[in-house]
Amino acid sequence: MILFNDQLIQREEARVDIEDRGYQFGDGVYEVVSVYEGKIFRLEEHLQRFQYSAGQIGIELPMSLDVLTTNLNKLLEANQLVNGQIYFQVTRGYAPRNHPFPARPNPVLTGYVTRKPRPLELMQTGVKAITLDDIRWLRCDIKSLNLLGSVLAKQKAVEQGAFEALLHRNGIVTEGSSTNLFIIKDGKMQTHPLGNLILGGITRIVILELAEQLNMPVIEESFNLQELYAADEVFVSSTTSEVMPIILIDGKQVGSGSVGPLTRKLQKLLEEMVFAHQEKVQ
Amino acid sequence: MILFNDQLIQREEARVDIEDRGYQFGDGVYEVVSVYEGKIFRLEEHLQRFQYSAGQIGIELPMSLDVLTTNLNKLLEANQLVNGQIYFQVTRGYAPRNHPFPARPNPVLTGYVTRKPRPLELMQTGVKAITLDDIRWLRCDIKSLNLLGSVLAKQKAVEQGAFEALLHRNGIVTEGSSTNLFIIKDGKMQTHPLGNLILGGITRIVILELAEQLNMPVIEESFNLQELYAADEVFVSSTTSEVMPIILIDGKQVGSGSVGPLTRKLQKLLEEMVFAHQEKVQ
Repeated sequence: MILFNDQLIQREEARVDIEDRGYQFGDGVYEVVSVYEGKIFRLEEHLQRFQYSAGQIGIELPMSLDVLTTNLNKLLEANQLVNGQIYFQVTRGYAPRNHPFPARPNPVLTGYVTRKPRPLELMQTGVKAITLDDIRWLRCDIKSLNLLGSVLAKQKAVEQGAFEALLHRNGIVTEGSSTNLFIIKDGKMQTHPLGNLILGGITRIVILELAEQLNMPVIEESFNLQELYAADEVFVSSTTSEVMPIILIDGKQVGSGSVGPLTRKLQKLLEEMVFAHQEKVQ
Repeated sequence: MILFNDQLIQREEARVDIEDRGYQFGDGVYEVVSVYEGKIFRLEEHLQRFQYSAGQIGIELPMSLDVLTTNLNKLLEANQLVNGQIYFQVTRGYAPRNHPFPARPNPVLTGYVTRKPRPLELMQTGVKAITLDDIRWLRCDIKSLNLLGSVLAKQKAVEQGAFEALLHRNGIVTEGSSTNLFIIKDGKMQTHPLGNLILGGITRIVILELAEQLNMPVIEESFNLQELYAADEVFVSSTTSEVMPIILIDGKQVGSGSVGPLTRKLQKLLEEMVFAHQEKVQ
């Protein structure tokens, strides 16, 4: 079953008009949330970001966040999803093609569940990454459907056998193509500050909370490629990748070339948070 | 009637899957062509650019340009279009959502006609423009469906009663949100050079040809905001806007504040080219 505005419909009915502005302009925003043991993780923060993204491009959500919460839970139940993800997006909807916003927009919200398993093996072994120029637009804080820059970067990574492309603007590292990026050096964690150049990741927030629990100093300041290569530990984060260790960048080993101890601690704490979250459900 | 891959279908049947990559990633490219007296203007160049754009993002067109030409003409005839436009786009098609390209893509090509009249009155009086930061990605040479940067800029222009937003990166002027931009100073015409920062407009090519006919010197070099404000004449160009004079920028008059003589000459020559094009049809 698919969420289509405030209705649950059959998968094969989930079709949109060719003049939906999502299809012609990428004119919309989205979220991906994780479901652990039947409960959506950090839904509140995802919904706040969804509303922020929509607001930044002038889309008014077609329902309140309370109603959306109810609908997402109905979607989850209708599909008997226990562990997996919900993808949902809103577009400015159908209008005869013209760049400016239509006078009377009819936003279209669609959502569906997926059942990708957690990437436990890769989280155990660590993964490879490459670095690439960050060619995306200058509003990466908006989780928009304009994802070609990320798609092309991820494709290049995959073609080189890598899990992720780490992006930089003139040598200043921003984030991964679909992840936030963290380095650890001498026990201190560093990540690009919030702003228009990176997405304010929900898992990023969680990791900053966990670092505080660990009394790990955190520096929210940009760093360059040299600092990236010289880090003791590097990892990326996202809702679906959780804490994903990077052990090779552009063919160069990160630290000792295996997953570092602080990255392991953060993985473990995130896992515990998920367990705690499960216990609350039970 | 709508072109859907190589079929003509009814308008109400023209719907796409919610997991079409065009709808989730803006993963596709498009063209808009003008039809004058039943004939598509400069189709060859539009098709070459369409193939270029698709190629740059790794989409293989689902048909040859010859077959596409035949299909576009069938679309035009089925809709008895004499004067107007054809919009067509191709996306990477349906695939379960994942950033990298799917192993076996099924591109979806859609096209339809519109009947917007030529903007003759605005071309006569000239229009207002504002300037804005160019926040788009760094592959503006690809005519992609990732158009949010352009949409937001055009919307700001409209909200300020302007026809177009003229974009600049740190003061270096690139182009309009959906047009190329030209300035004229002391009888010389200047426009941003081709490259990754602007779209290689088909009307831009035509205007460079016309300037040569007029023995008007042309400089394809970037210029800054001060040079824009100080120009004798300014105009933007596109398939649907043709040669559109700008007479007010950020509230400041361009030159004398009315449409300049060289802009008028270019409008007239373009009109003559359209007439010649019509005569060839008859």
